[in-house]
Amino acid sequence: MNQSLKLFTAGPVACFPEVLEAMKTQMFSHRSREYQELHMETIELLSWFLETRKTILLFPSSGTGVMEASIRNAVSHGGKVLVTIIGAFGERYAEVVEANGRTAIKLEFKWGEPVDLDRLKEALDLNPDIEAVAVTHNETSTGVLNPLKDIAKIVKKYDKLLFVDAVSSMGAADIKFDEWKIDIVFSSSQKAFGVPPGLAMAALSDEALELSRNMSGKGWYFDLYKYYKVQLEKKSTPSTPPIPQIIGLNVILKKIRDMGKYNWLDMYRRRSERIRDGVREIGLRLFAKEGFESPTITTIYSPEGVDGSIIYEEMRKRGFELAKGYGRIKKITFRIGNMGDIKDEDIDEMLKNLREVIEELKSR
Amino acid sequence: MNQSLKLFTAGPVACFPEVLEAMKTQMFSHRSREYQELHMETIELLSWFLETRKTILLFPSSGTGVMEASIRNAVSHGGKVLVTIIGAFGERYAEVVEANGRTAIKLEFKWGEPVDLDRLKEALDLNPDIEAVAVTHNETSTGVLNPLKDIAKIVKKYDKLLFVDAVSSMGAADIKFDEWKIDIVFSSSQKAFGVPPGLAMAALSDEALELSRNMSGKGWYFDLYKYYKVQLEKKSTPSTPPIPQIIGLNVILKKIRDMGKYNWLDMYRRRSERIRDGVREIGLRLFAKEGFESPTITTIYSPEGVDGSIIYEEMRKRGFELAKGYGRIKKITFRIGNMGDIKDEDIDEMLKNLREVIEELKSR
Repeated sequence: MNQSLKLFTAGPVACFPEVLEAMKTQMFSHRSREYQELHMETIELLSWFLETRKTILLFPSSGTGVMEASIRNAVSHGGKVLVTIIGAFGERYAEVVEANGRTAIKLEFKWGEPVDLDRLKEALDLNPDIEAVAVTHNETSTGVLNPLKDIAKIVKKYDKLLFVDAVSSMGAADIKFDEWKIDIVFSSSQKAFGVPPGLAMAALSDEALELSRNMSGKGWYFDLYKYYKVQLEKKSTPSTPPIPQIIGLNVILKKIRDMGKYNWLDMYRRRSERIRDGVREIGLRLFAKEGFESPTITTIYSPEGVDGSIIYEEMRKRGFELAKGYGRIKKITFRIGNMGDIKDEDIDEMLKNLREVIEELKSR
Repeated sequence: MNQSLKLFTAGPVACFPEVLEAMKTQMFSHRSREYQELHMETIELLSWFLETRKTILLFPSSGTGVMEASIRNAVSHGGKVLVTIIGAFGERYAEVVEANGRTAIKLEFKWGEPVDLDRLKEALDLNPDIEAVAVTHNETSTGVLNPLKDIAKIVKKYDKLLFVDAVSSMGAADIKFDEWKIDIVFSSSQKAFGVPPGLAMAALSDEALELSRNMSGKGWYFDLYKYYKVQLEKKSTPSTPPIPQIIGLNVILKKIRDMGKYNWLDMYRRRSERIRDGVREIGLRLFAKEGFESPTITTIYSPEGVDGSIIYEEMRKRGFELAKGYGRIKKITFRIGNMGDIKDEDIDEMLKNLREVIEELKSR
């Protein structure tokens, strides 16, 4: 493998050295005391980070696994979910709703824009029988961060469940689980936490947990109530957890605690600004609506007539792995992630190369 | 964590040093060429190992995830599955069947014994409408290896689907997927392959794949046909895979290839024999019926009046992590695993300590 590439990916991202070092820890049983301590300490650190006293769970899956769990555990069979769609991962949420025998009411917004609060209210007025609202906190395809706090306020005024896909935001954008009254929020290890993939984590409200308890046909693997009970009784997971990734997450959460939560989040904000400033200076246009730019990923229009994947390929030749466009804007965009172990000098070096690539491509 | 314990666990097991070293590889995107190469090479190695030209898939989950997938993708809603139960993991298969809205016809055998072939035929005669038979290849709770080849012959004579939980056998007991006409076999990384947990792998017959293609309500996360299609088109998985574990599995499969498949399997057979011989010499009784002993785990009756967990605790004090009894025989047994990075000297040292512990406990 070409290990010399500098990663500006959408995830998996470059992991912090202390995480990679921890990944090679010799294994131990997930029923041993050593595991129980690791598990509960990691849960506590996540509780602190998400500002919650509710239930936190760890899953041997990617984030999409918990997306599926939210539907199967907390929405009645055939029940309606209002899925807000601002890009490809909102579309995935709708697919997951339908694949699990529930009904997705799609509320689509122009790609590049966040959820419009008035249209959200309108949809909630029009569909009084919806049970839950699904929101992509940070849309990895468009590089847009949704105003989650404002969205949550509306959803809760209508007394609906709120499910949040925070796969590419948790660890980079603030989430106050209890204060915002979220019902299920989930993420995965390989994004803003800078840990290898294989682990998902979620926070659950009491109501979501109670719904799971009484849900039929929810399956075994993503039975949220079972996860809760096993954690309570055995300080572990129902089936074997991805121990190395949990060790890695534990290392990172302690790093964040030492640095201070808001200093850590600020690091991501500054990195993404540095990238946006640089990209604008090159003369490229950002895809995200101003004021709603993601702190973890920047989606950029490729110059007129240039396929975004060519920029990706040219940058690879120069040692930088960016991310191609995703979904329906695959051809007209490319993306620059800033999650994980990235230094300001790497960003500057990447931008310098990007300028040269763009100039070359324009002069062809 | 106490890293000095010698592991004789039921899994996660002690990983081989070259695997642990590989675990700290810096990450890369699961949509990159580097990942595609790793993915397809690992699939090819697994195909070779399982002697199959059918579909091999990798999952970001534990083995139980694929157990759930077998039911949701290849059994009709409400359809019947004959679940053979020779211990706790057979019971789990039945739970998974029921949790997914299918009907489990339980065929239970005395714990410690394998599936009785005559009773299997009888059950198949009595239940002509069953769609599939579920078998635990190696029952981790009782230390029994089922005669899979013979079972498969019968199941196929009755023209039923055959699902095999090979979580604690794949990598240690032979599986000839095509020749034995298995429909779905699955395992996970943290057992006989000696890789950390977080990755599951499966082989699928064409019929299982076709059933998945046409199945409704199968969900998104474990949609086997989707995995197949994405692998064909993108040489990757639908959602982010546990890359470090895949790197680890790749390393081990190459080690097995270099050593020769049957030499590798023989290593496990010899190790488990060494443990059984030693345990008998101490005067302890084995739980598994003679001739059906597992090549990966030995379940042992604790001496009359001694709780098996005390032996576990005493051995821990001496630096050996065995496994406690599991399920309904938790108190009257303890277990010694021999998967992963274990040397003959370690086995002898462990047995010497076990003898002392047993003598001490008996003289109390």
